[in-house]
Amino acid sequence: MHKLVLIRHGESTWNLENRFTGWTDVDLTATGIEQAKNAGRLLKAEGYEFDLAYTSVLKRATRTLWHCLDEMDRTWLPVEHSWRLNERHYGALQGLNKAETAKQYGDAQVLVWRRSYDTPPPALAANDPRSERGDLRYAGLAPDQVPLTECLKDTVQRVLPYWNDTIAPTIRSGKRVLIAAHGNSIRALVKYLDGISDQDIVGLNIPNGIPLVYELDADLKPLRHYYLGDAEAAARAAAAVAAQGKA
Amino acid sequence: MHKLVLIRHGESTWNLENRFTGWTDVDLTATGIEQAKNAGRLLKAEGYEFDLAYTSVLKRATRTLWHCLDEMDRTWLPVEHSWRLNERHYGALQGLNKAETAKQYGDAQVLVWRRSYDTPPPALAANDPRSERGDLRYAGLAPDQVPLTECLKDTVQRVLPYWNDTIAPTIRSGKRVLIAAHGNSIRALVKYLDGISDQDIVGLNIPNGIPLVYELDADLKPLRHYYLGDAEAAARAAAAVAAQGKA
Repeated sequence: MHKLVLIRHGESTWNLENRFTGWTDVDLTATGIEQAKNAGRLLKAEGYEFDLAYTSVLKRATRTLWHCLDEMDRTWLPVEHSWRLNERHYGALQGLNKAETAKQYGDAQVLVWRRSYDTPPPALAANDPRSERGDLRYAGLAPDQVPLTECLKDTVQRVLPYWNDTIAPTIRSGKRVLIAAHGNSIRALVKYLDGISDQDIVGLNIPNGIPLVYELDADLKPLRHYYLGDAEAAARAAAAVAAQGKA
Repeated sequence: MHKLVLIRHGESTWNLENRFTGWTDVDLTATGIEQAKNAGRLLKAEGYEFDLAYTSVLKRATRTLWHCLDEMDRTWLPVEHSWRLNERHYGALQGLNKAETAKQYGDAQVLVWRRSYDTPPPALAANDPRSERGDLRYAGLAPDQVPLTECLKDTVQRVLPYWNDTIAPTIRSGKRVLIAAHGNSIRALVKYLDGISDQDIVGLNIPNGIPLVYELDADLKPLRHYYLGDAEAAARAAAAVAAQGKA
């Protein structure tokens, strides 16, 4: 039996401002730092040990991981970054306020953009100053690998190769893995692991900064999963995520 | 031409308390954090870019690196940890106050322990609670790879395989490398790079938290080296390091 721990980054400045973030590299708030440290304290109190950690190339996830490792006194653990664990790209919505966008386009349209499995938000223009195509951290990618928008289906398609080629073989080899990532890259993984349908994934929300434990069998099929710590707090936090896109 | 940047961690709690530290995993002081951030700001201001970073498995070096990367907005850079970049093991002196030890044994004996190339301090007993042999981060090593004491010659002998097998090939491949390490693991590297004699290395001191740039030719022979920022401040800081072991 393998244990895999997933953690969504703590609250970011744009979570707080209720703005669409996507690949924009915003930092954690003071609350987000506290959530990350608390996740580390929980993992330590429950006796979790890891052999390595994966995270995105976005600082809110990296910093969440660093705070966790700090609290666990495991700052020496190997960490691998991949753009494939980044948040879903939010296209031309990146930077816009969620509630204002809902007022302008209606709750229904925003819900489609936020939660439809296969309808992406409007794309960024490639020369939009918000585009990440000139960013050094993506310099090793083909230009068309750097998205201008994504629906969750697109996110699943770029997360899964990393799972299949890198993370899953590592877990199968017996290593204990921690993944610090984002709401939608974690939803992509959870959808795949639990075989959630394209319809049902719409209703699944991942709270910030609460370790989500998957117990996996030898074939990496989930036996069960649970949040560490206060289950009711985790449920409330997930419900709050679901409510963010309302006008 | 390659540029390699070496940085000794910022001031640690035991630097401040003037205690022999070695492999003891003490943290940075507030001053040490500020030194580390300042190093990152200097590197950023001078336009340095890196493809990856190496550090030890000790948190004062890791955290120094993290603060540098933070200030450079490069938290996504790959980082590789190795015990081979750890500080020199200080044996049974680990935890003792340098000045008190000098009072007890005399300045001359402490200078031998601190700076002799091939005379190690008294060894820790393998079952000493200060021994790192039970520490998880060294679990992959053979027990006798985890030292009970080291002279600088021993440190050179365990740093160089990592240089030759890992760091040097990376630099030769054209990657720009940052190393955040320790006074003696950096002295070991510098001794090798500059071909400094066993006698002359005794007088070389590395200040905390100041980026040391090596310009290397295609064979990784040094063309020149220099500290970033205020050269006089770097010289004063190195002199302060030299004075630490006096009664």
